[in-house]
Amino acid sequence: MKLTILGCYAATPRTFTNPTSQVLEIKNRLFLIDCGEGTQVQLRKNKIKFSKINQIFISHLHGDHFFGLIGLISTFSLLNCNNDLHIYGPKGIKEIIMLQLRLSNSWPNFGLHFYELTSGQSELIYEDEKVLVKTIPLKHRVYTNGFLFQEKIDKRKLNIEAVEQYQIEKCYYQNIKNGKDILLDDGTLVSNEQLTFDPEQPRSYAFCSDTAYNEAVLPIIEKTDILYHEATFLQSEVNLAAKTMHSTAIEAATIAEKAQVKQLILGHYSTRYEAIELFKVEAETVFPNVLLADDGKTFDL
Amino acid sequence: MKLTILGCYAATPRTFTNPTSQVLEIKNRLFLIDCGEGTQVQLRKNKIKFSKINQIFISHLHGDHFFGLIGLISTFSLLNCNNDLHIYGPKGIKEIIMLQLRLSNSWPNFGLHFYELTSGQSELIYEDEKVLVKTIPLKHRVYTNGFLFQEKIDKRKLNIEAVEQYQIEKCYYQNIKNGKDILLDDGTLVSNEQLTFDPEQPRSYAFCSDTAYNEAVLPIIEKTDILYHEATFLQSEVNLAAKTMHSTAIEAATIAEKAQVKQLILGHYSTRYEAIELFKVEAETVFPNVLLADDGKTFDL
Repeated sequence: MKLTILGCYAATPRTFTNPTSQVLEIKNRLFLIDCGEGTQVQLRKNKIKFSKINQIFISHLHGDHFFGLIGLISTFSLLNCNNDLHIYGPKGIKEIIMLQLRLSNSWPNFGLHFYELTSGQSELIYEDEKVLVKTIPLKHRVYTNGFLFQEKIDKRKLNIEAVEQYQIEKCYYQNIKNGKDILLDDGTLVSNEQLTFDPEQPRSYAFCSDTAYNEAVLPIIEKTDILYHEATFLQSEVNLAAKTMHSTAIEAATIAEKAQVKQLILGHYSTRYEAIELFKVEAETVFPNVLLADDGKTFDL
Repeated sequence: MKLTILGCYAATPRTFTNPTSQVLEIKNRLFLIDCGEGTQVQLRKNKIKFSKINQIFISHLHGDHFFGLIGLISTFSLLNCNNDLHIYGPKGIKEIIMLQLRLSNSWPNFGLHFYELTSGQSELIYEDEKVLVKTIPLKHRVYTNGFLFQEKIDKRKLNIEAVEQYQIEKCYYQNIKNGKDILLDDGTLVSNEQLTFDPEQPRSYAFCSDTAYNEAVLPIIEKTDILYHEATFLQSEVNLAAKTMHSTAIEAATIAEKAQVKQLILGHYSTRYEAIELFKVEAETVFPNVLLADDGKTFDL
């Protein structure tokens, strides 16, 4: 699992910082999470192939989280990327994109599929053989969801030495991986545990931005491996955080602590701060494992 | 008159090139012309004060000419710029912007005035004490206008030596600047030409992008000082230019030659070309005074 931060600063793009966008690579799938203005250029700078982006998750319709989407779609179209795009985001996103495509008379040469979200409850919005994605309803000034990405439990791994020792034929290997016990020709029952190793523990990543301090997320993100939680402000601006429905670093860390996650990554810093190190310092007073997102940074998780 | 090129490449923003946007400074007014994705960052990089941008002209609703507009408006609002914004562009631009403001529930704290264009004829769309702006209907795949910026003729300039010699009182100076003759107390009529200098010749700038070769623009831009004309392609791609309703460098130069403009600036280069020098070489086979636009370049005109 690998996370690439394309942008992690609040509000407005600037010369050297970018609004929210990140790419999560999980089980060889790439998921684009949020798409602030300039995301397509950030993808280029971070050498992420456009053609690998097929699923896009938009948390909410504030500009610093989606103004880059229409440009991304247009560029994919101009460059003749021909994979379908699936876009998950708040109701209204389809109208915004389709209006602009209609007025520019520029229809993409690939399928554009919208999954508009309206629920206030966590829901499963994506599932394939290896990965699940669920929404994490957040508390912000407009309808907002975070997203929980979960690997499914892999099949058990064949213990080649063991199966060869029992002289089991290859045609049974798939059954063994699926968890079946094996009855040998001499009537001996060999339990699956003797023939396989445990699969790797499935990992999970929760993206929570933008949100006020909100304990309602705890049951959804409980024991998640990695939590990206917005920390727009330091504690000195706690009142401003409450007013604008954002979090402080300490609030983000409190959520991490209470949800018993393994690792917290902070981001969505207000551009009022000249340096971001204090976010880590403040968060670590509450929760020990804190990393700081920054534009262009990658995390091998 | 000063022209700053924020972006002048066709189609998609890339790591080191930007889609169309430019700032024309004329008579101490700043006019923003087109607003591709990333324009707000280009304004920052070129140290152009956001607060000086009040008039925005959008040629057409292809993304590389307007996808940066919603982000610009949002940023002006977030930064509490409180000057009204006046936006001139094709019908539909208001719906695009208002839909996004409505869905993000982010209303700017300044007036936002839209002037939607639908005419196929050149029309006067802006006028103040010193400057006029007229549309230049262009020929492209969607409804498109270029813009002609014209200084008005200044008042005549007072010849201080002359008025003092005739001992004319100061209260008459404004009348003299307005062109009036003066009757002295002794009955002598002093003609205005004796008391004033000619004003500077008013200058003009024509922006023509995007467009196929289109002689219909000639009467509108005739004898313009500076013509910015798109040259998306070199002559080797003349058929592609015709098909996509763009121009070649030679076609742009032919328009410049036939319109008897003083200076041609080329831009809107296709990103297929590694270097842009050949655009100048080809254009100069038809018209002598050719300059190449490039991102971040300024022209003191």
